[in-house]
Amino acid sequence: MSAPSRLALVPFLSVAGMMRLVHAIGIEPFLVELAEEIEADFRRWPAFDKTPRIASHSDVGVIELMPTSDGETYGFKYVNGHPANMKRGLQTVTAFGLLAEVETGYPVLLSEMTILTALRTAATSAMAAKWLAAPGGTGVMALIGNGAQAEFQALAFRAVCGTREVRLYDIDLAATAKCAANLAGRGLRVVSCATAEEAILGAGTITTVTADKQYATILTDNMVGAGVHLNAVGGDCPGKTELHRDILLRSQIFVEYPPQTRIEGEIQQLPPDHPVEELWQVIAGQAPGRRDARAVTLFDSVGFAVEDFSALRYVRRRLAETGLAQQLDMIADPDDPRDLFGMVMRAA
Amino acid sequence: MSAPSRLALVPFLSVAGMMRLVHAIGIEPFLVELAEEIEADFRRWPAFDKTPRIASHSDVGVIELMPTSDGETYGFKYVNGHPANMKRGLQTVTAFGLLAEVETGYPVLLSEMTILTALRTAATSAMAAKWLAAPGGTGVMALIGNGAQAEFQALAFRAVCGTREVRLYDIDLAATAKCAANLAGRGLRVVSCATAEEAILGAGTITTVTADKQYATILTDNMVGAGVHLNAVGGDCPGKTELHRDILLRSQIFVEYPPQTRIEGEIQQLPPDHPVEELWQVIAGQAPGRRDARAVTLFDSVGFAVEDFSALRYVRRRLAETGLAQQLDMIADPDDPRDLFGMVMRAA
Repeated sequence: MSAPSRLALVPFLSVAGMMRLVHAIGIEPFLVELAEEIEADFRRWPAFDKTPRIASHSDVGVIELMPTSDGETYGFKYVNGHPANMKRGLQTVTAFGLLAEVETGYPVLLSEMTILTALRTAATSAMAAKWLAAPGGTGVMALIGNGAQAEFQALAFRAVCGTREVRLYDIDLAATAKCAANLAGRGLRVVSCATAEEAILGAGTITTVTADKQYATILTDNMVGAGVHLNAVGGDCPGKTELHRDILLRSQIFVEYPPQTRIEGEIQQLPPDHPVEELWQVIAGQAPGRRDARAVTLFDSVGFAVEDFSALRYVRRRLAETGLAQQLDMIADPDDPRDLFGMVMRAA
Repeated sequence: MSAPSRLALVPFLSVAGMMRLVHAIGIEPFLVELAEEIEADFRRWPAFDKTPRIASHSDVGVIELMPTSDGETYGFKYVNGHPANMKRGLQTVTAFGLLAEVETGYPVLLSEMTILTALRTAATSAMAAKWLAAPGGTGVMALIGNGAQAEFQALAFRAVCGTREVRLYDIDLAATAKCAANLAGRGLRVVSCATAEEAILGAGTITTVTADKQYATILTDNMVGAGVHLNAVGGDCPGKTELHRDILLRSQIFVEYPPQTRIEGEIQQLPPDHPVEELWQVIAGQAPGRRDARAVTLFDSVGFAVEDFSALRYVRRRLAETGLAQQLDMIADPDDPRDLFGMVMRAA
């Protein structure tokens, strides 16, 4: 059998490769550059082919495909969400993604995205807070839910928004201890708190990132003061919310892609015509964003395909310099494209 | 950095691996077993979570994701269709696919599917003809369009339906010559024809499998006699058809999944309420199939996600015996699932 041709080979970035890439760049520069890449794509939001993700739900979780295209490059992510996985020692969320050329349909990158999704979710949160928080509102952040996404959030806020203090709370003390230990020595004042109320004291930004697949009330209305920016990350599928409805009713609500967020976000608790604002319009200068310093702003983040597209493109560009990719023999490439059968038979 | 754990590794079947698997099993036994696998899944059709494929169209082609699930296993295929690729020496259709456990969302197989799609399309055609053709109607088949799918069709019909003679026609003489050469010595009488009219002489089954992305008329009404079974494979996206509308109007039309076929199949030429029959109901014994020996039956094949699911499951089962899979480090798997960040940092 002859060796596969160049066209047959798809660069693949493994989990180990992704970790090497993060260390080669440095995690904070990685988060800053990634936020810039996402921001650049939000500025050209109308250029993207957008569709709500395609979800396959079961009793125990969900498997989703998230495609998008800018007309030159196509990308999609495979991602699952299985809250019960953690108890068996598995990840709640695992993911991988792919980029392809629109012109030929040929894949040009396959990448792990469990780590990359954690990075892009944090980078997107920090980018949104940069645009929406009140002046000075990102100096102190509360981080409610100290699981797999927590440290990425804290470092993205430090790198992108200049956050100095992070106040941790989780119903699981071990999660808070893990998060505090991981964040030690990274230039943040870390305060572990015994209650959510204590965590939000003095915080201009509150990130909720909990994992239960159920309607939960991590924050009640009386806990959220004027001028706070809320970053609701954990409510991201039907039946899974984190904030009390009353908070939503007095917030300026910003979303990624309304048709998806109405199904998956905190706003699934509201009537389908409740007004929301699109974050991309704020970034593109087409909408004012925060109304005034006393408004409560809410980024009802569910994660959208464009962010994954940005992340994959960023990785592809930085990867080109590194040699960290493996080459996968994934695309059948007969010498005569009509002779697929002959290629298979000659391989005998 | 420590080695990835077992859970992090996803078995991957490369193009070279797929070709070795085909040769290890033998291409005709592979097609027969694959048709049996697809048939078994058609019998339990209501068990599948079904959705039309998610297509991203451009001027030059389409990229599609085709997901399905039977509640235990989830599968999807990535596939492109770019008719202009052939002129640049690229495949019109390339594909890969994945299976995952519904219970955990973890992938359990990544496989090339360019070759596997060719095999499953041919196996599905032959399975449909076995159920729909008139008695004796598969002894002689016409094969109009002699490109990358042609030989697979011919061998699947030989292996599954006992076809003895295949009559070839293509507007490109070189394609017919390639197909005839590839089929020599494989137990079929092969007749190369100068016109489509000549090709269909005496054929009880006519397969059309041409590749132009346009409304074309490969067959006109007067060419199709009583009792013929038509297997329309090439018309599989909006704007791409092969049969004259009048043929459809006097045929019993069988489809895979009506919501998808109404968009992509030959029946896009018909009103959206034109009656069609579902192939799975015939196979499951819930519908009679062919009305009588003089009826014209049409399998308006566009390719559905369940067939890819069947193919991937078949490959996964047969692969287990062979050792042909590579192990891809694709799933991040920290010792403590909440400590993704710690895993990344310790990799330094």
